[in-house]
Amino acid sequence: MAGDALALARTLIERESVTPADAGCQELIGERLSAAGFAVERLRFGEVDNLWAVAGDSGPLLCFAGHTDVVPTGPLEDWSHPPFTATIENDWLIGRGASDMKSSVAAMVCAAERFRANYPEHGGRVAFLLTSDEEGPAVDGTRAVMEWLAARGIAIDYCLVGEPSSTDTLGDTVKNGRRGSLNGHARVRGRQGHVAYPHKADNALHRLLALLADLAAHHWDDGDEFFPPTSFQVSNLEAGTGAENVIPGVAEARFNWRFNPTQNEASIRAHVEERCEAHGIATDAIQWRLSGAPFITREGALIDATRAAIREHAGIDTLLSTAGGTSDGRFIAPTGAQVLELGPLNDTIHQANEKIAAADVEHLSRIYEGIVRRLLV
Amino acid sequence: MAGDALALARTLIERESVTPADAGCQELIGERLSAAGFAVERLRFGEVDNLWAVAGDSGPLLCFAGHTDVVPTGPLEDWSHPPFTATIENDWLIGRGASDMKSSVAAMVCAAERFRANYPEHGGRVAFLLTSDEEGPAVDGTRAVMEWLAARGIAIDYCLVGEPSSTDTLGDTVKNGRRGSLNGHARVRGRQGHVAYPHKADNALHRLLALLADLAAHHWDDGDEFFPPTSFQVSNLEAGTGAENVIPGVAEARFNWRFNPTQNEASIRAHVEERCEAHGIATDAIQWRLSGAPFITREGALIDATRAAIREHAGIDTLLSTAGGTSDGRFIAPTGAQVLELGPLNDTIHQANEKIAAADVEHLSRIYEGIVRRLLV
Ligand SMILES: [Zn+2]
Ligand SMILES: [Zn+2]
Repeated sequence: MAGDALALARTLIERESVTPADAGCQELIGERLSAAGFAVERLRFGEVDNLWAVAGDSGPLLCFAGHTDVVPTGPLEDWSHPPFTATIENDWLIGRGASDMKSSVAAMVCAAERFRANYPEHGGRVAFLLTSDEEGPAVDGTRAVMEWLAARGIAIDYCLVGEPSSTDTLGDTVKNGRRGSLNGHARVRGRQGHVAYPHKADNALHRLLALLADLAAHHWDDGDEFFPPTSFQVSNLEAGTGAENVIPGVAEARFNWRFNPTQNEASIRAHVEERCEAHGIATDAIQWRLSGAPFITREGALIDATRAAIREHAGIDTLLSTAGGTSDGRFIAPTGAQVLELGPLNDTIHQANEKIAAADVEHLSRIYEGIVRRLLV
Repeated sequence: MAGDALALARTLIERESVTPADAGCQELIGERLSAAGFAVERLRFGEVDNLWAVAGDSGPLLCFAGHTDVVPTGPLEDWSHPPFTATIENDWLIGRGASDMKSSVAAMVCAAERFRANYPEHGGRVAFLLTSDEEGPAVDGTRAVMEWLAARGIAIDYCLVGEPSSTDTLGDTVKNGRRGSLNGHARVRGRQGHVAYPHKADNALHRLLALLADLAAHHWDDGDEFFPPTSFQVSNLEAGTGAENVIPGVAEARFNWRFNPTQNEASIRAHVEERCEAHGIATDAIQWRLSGAPFITREGALIDATRAAIREHAGIDTLLSTAGGTSDGRFIAPTGAQVLELGPLNDTIHQANEKIAAADVEHLSRIYEGIVRRLLV
């Protein structure tokens, strides 16, 4: 089966590895990589299975990064075929994980196998970093593995993350960075009262409204050549007892920033805390959680190799983009690695009937192989 | 028992007339008033019992207005005595309705009985307007009776509403008007989306936030000699799916104005609809409900008689006030009647262990009688 990326993708999809379960995917992959000369480490942190594998002795380290976990299926009746049967129909491979991201993982494994077989004397090192906790809290997954690597002095030079980056055609878009993501949770307290006696009450909701309207209207920055302007969105707000005549004494909201590298957690918090003061809100009314710092991979060897490999195997020019949600790249890029995300079309991810064009699995594997070859031969 | 206001108050409290139940209160009162020469009409609208009674042939009509329904007891364990036993302890009469407003109703009935007995040849007319739907929706109660009176060409000249108006001493405060109350319910629609792709979504909450912060910061007016400035309060707001990364497509809020006579429903709506347009909110996103227009009773015969009667029986000067919640006076004043609210201390209304100083029931009855005498003799 070595070299048949589609077959491996189907085998992986058949394993019901709903996050944080790995369901044996990494054991299978570990065996394949061992056979290809990789030194394989199985790293279990908490409930999460992780795998680190490396082949080659020294020189530039290129790491394939990905996850074996998948999101839940949602209602089974929404699926045309059971989500873990990896059905092929009309040249589509259908199943949970087909595009996010078991096909990518299979393509990476087969690319590495071929590369090792075709260039036994290659320079540099090829590595794999796999986790079963990308779709979940992402605490005991890639983040923990990066700490484990740092403790051993292992640094990644080039990283290809298999997240589904493509829009209309395989390889048309590569993510060369991500915005940062910062969450805030405000719980503002006032004094409950009757609407007929507003002077005896202190409407917590009015204070929160004023703050949030202020922040929503604020122009944070203009972005830069790679990133759109920072955006602020209030996702949830709740206040009131349900009664029409009661002034609420507590009001709560959750909000999020997607921010470019002209900002950081401190710059955003400083502005918010200044506005809190202006609106009579205690700054400790807000709890903060940084979900990821922004990162960017600029022009260089990894982008050059990726562009050339896509042109060779897909015949198209690729577009660099920093749009979209966060990925585990946020844990890898801060170490100084060049990180790109390159994977299948993302139009069905996390949905019922998730799928990938069956031929794209092999195409993707050939592109990955072309990138490794350009960087390590 | 005629003339014993405390005894009648206890009899009424013993009837469990939780809104909209009357529990026989009006039948008992009707019999007493019939015996005093009143023509009594029992008016049942929907689930609500109402009573209209009048004595006298022509001339100024003074109406006692009140309600026989009470609010629910709340947890029985919070009461020192069962709420419908009308216990007297340490000179307090304790029970649901003791201050809101069965004592007032009893005081009115006894005042009318004495007045009719002492001045059988009195001028003008004495009337009663009672309902069992003041604490509930107030649709089939006083409002409906006023329509019934209007259809018969009957107009009230002076009206004494028995709502608990006093603050520290019986009679220290009389309500000579009320602010209007206008409710709004906004349901703003946008387009749900992912916080990472704000340009593909339209955050309904951001629009609503901007509108409400704008309205909360607005200075509506300065009030006038009788009324404080109009106040706007948002009582409830709800938006969001609970997920931190979803931009809400719908946001809902409830809000209320307490407004003085320099405003009306149309002036408030006009401002809000102008601001809706400024914030990109469809004006039909807001549903309106006028709960009561403001009213004011200016200096005149009713205030003069009330001041003098309070001075005579309680030995104090009374204060005119327009503060506080709405009452059924809002349905009576628009017909041109002079309306005053005069009743017990309001410190325990709607609470456990609602009470009134036992002696105040008779004192209140004497004050009511003094007012009638001054106006109709
Ligand atoms: Zn993924
Ligand atoms: Zn009342």
